[in-house]
Amino acid sequence: MSDLQIRDIAILHGASEEFFTKLESVGNERKLDKGKIVFIHEEQAENFYILMAGWVKLFRETADGAQSIIDILPAGHTFGETPIFEDGLYPYSAEIVEPSVVISAPLSLLKEELQSNNELSMNMLKHLIRYKRGQDRELEHMTVQNAPQRIGCFLMRLADSDSKGPVTIHLPYDKTLLAARLGMQPETFSRALAKLKEQTGIRVKGAVVELDNLEQLINYSCQVCSSEFPCKDVVSLK
Amino acid sequence: MSDLQIRDIAILHGASEEFFTKLESVGNERKLDKGKIVFIHEEQAENFYILMAGWVKLFRETADGAQSIIDILPAGHTFGETPIFEDGLYPYSAEIVEPSVVISAPLSLLKEELQSNNELSMNMLKHLIRYKRGQDRELEHMTVQNAPQRIGCFLMRLADSDSKGPVTIHLPYDKTLLAARLGMQPETFSRALAKLKEQTGIRVKGAVVELDNLEQLINYSCQVCSSEFPCKDVVSLK
Repeated sequence: MSDLQIRDIAILHGASEEFFTKLESVGNERKLDKGKIVFIHEEQAENFYILMAGWVKLFRETADGAQSIIDILPAGHTFGETPIFEDGLYPYSAEIVEPSVVISAPLSLLKEELQSNNELSMNMLKHLIRYKRGQDRELEHMTVQNAPQRIGCFLMRLADSDSKGPVTIHLPYDKTLLAARLGMQPETFSRALAKLKEQTGIRVKGAVVELDNLEQLINYSCQVCSSEFPCKDVVSLK
Repeated sequence: MSDLQIRDIAILHGASEEFFTKLESVGNERKLDKGKIVFIHEEQAENFYILMAGWVKLFRETADGAQSIIDILPAGHTFGETPIFEDGLYPYSAEIVEPSVVISAPLSLLKEELQSNNELSMNMLKHLIRYKRGQDRELEHMTVQNAPQRIGCFLMRLADSDSKGPVTIHLPYDKTLLAARLGMQPETFSRALAKLKEQTGIRVKGAVVELDNLEQLINYSCQVCSSEFPCKDVVSLK
């Protein structure tokens, strides 16, 4: 199901050979179905997780019952690792949203490696700073971009940024979830997608989006952003 | 002007005595007036900065000329340090927004200390993860809270969270800037502040906000948030 290897996981670059050997020995790899809850917000954290295939949603619930999505991560990402640096509780819930392969391993293993291996700590700092840049742009877009422009930006994260000709983008999960990820009501998302089609000429058939070229989206979304294409800020989901 | 000492800067906890001694020797402390630009987005980064007193605005400009505020940091924070982990260019511009005291020092000094001192790297990871939690909530609030509720949340960041009785909050910089920090147009901010007063009974006189008790804001803002008061997510500005 996945060609990804543990040593390919970017956030773990710099970890020692000993760490990877232990991880292979104690790590528990499982296939998980859509809908599976991996852990719950504020639960005592015992393990961290590596997503080898699929998609995982990180979310919370507000006091009045609304769901707030923190991120939907693709394969190659870790999740549930931050309790090492905090109060030992998961800061969000995690739910599988497409059939996935997940490795779980004790947080203590990662903590010990981080405490003894500065190369890994530095690499993790680099990744967090990169992630923060993306989040800075998301916050910016909430203020300066309209809903169709924000959908356009998200679609570009799913495309090869060096594509010159026609581009086909496959939406990675259902549109209701995509709307929620972008902080939109489903109706707002539908209207915004219709407007994006009308303004840029992109074609949407179910989960497939077709473009004559990336310029259609770049001209529409990136003109209302503090970053230029190809983007140094927003993290690719490709 | 400032009672803060270099060794009090939370993000530098864990740095060696040798680092602090070098920092005291090569660091350049200056008083800077409101309006002073410290560095510009995409400029080659030579120094990092420590804000010993005052407030600094980190911002960018979008392609169509709008200003997008990334954050406005109080004393005790560093800024301009992330180029160490990136392409060596500042990822934002920095402007002093209230009379400030700033120490500048070569990025190479911090880089060498990070590369040789895992305790500092781990402490920096802890701070970034804490910051990310706050940013996660800001993104959440953009979707689930209305403008008056977001102002209410911001006011709580300026108050002592253990206050039981009457609370007086001093706005740290002018209202136009506060509106921009919250991603609101000045007119939207004024209307939202009026609604917040009406709904919660808080009193606003110029830059001073008076509350009978914090509950007035907690009941109004925290009910539409995935975090509870006292907040583990949003970072105090007190």
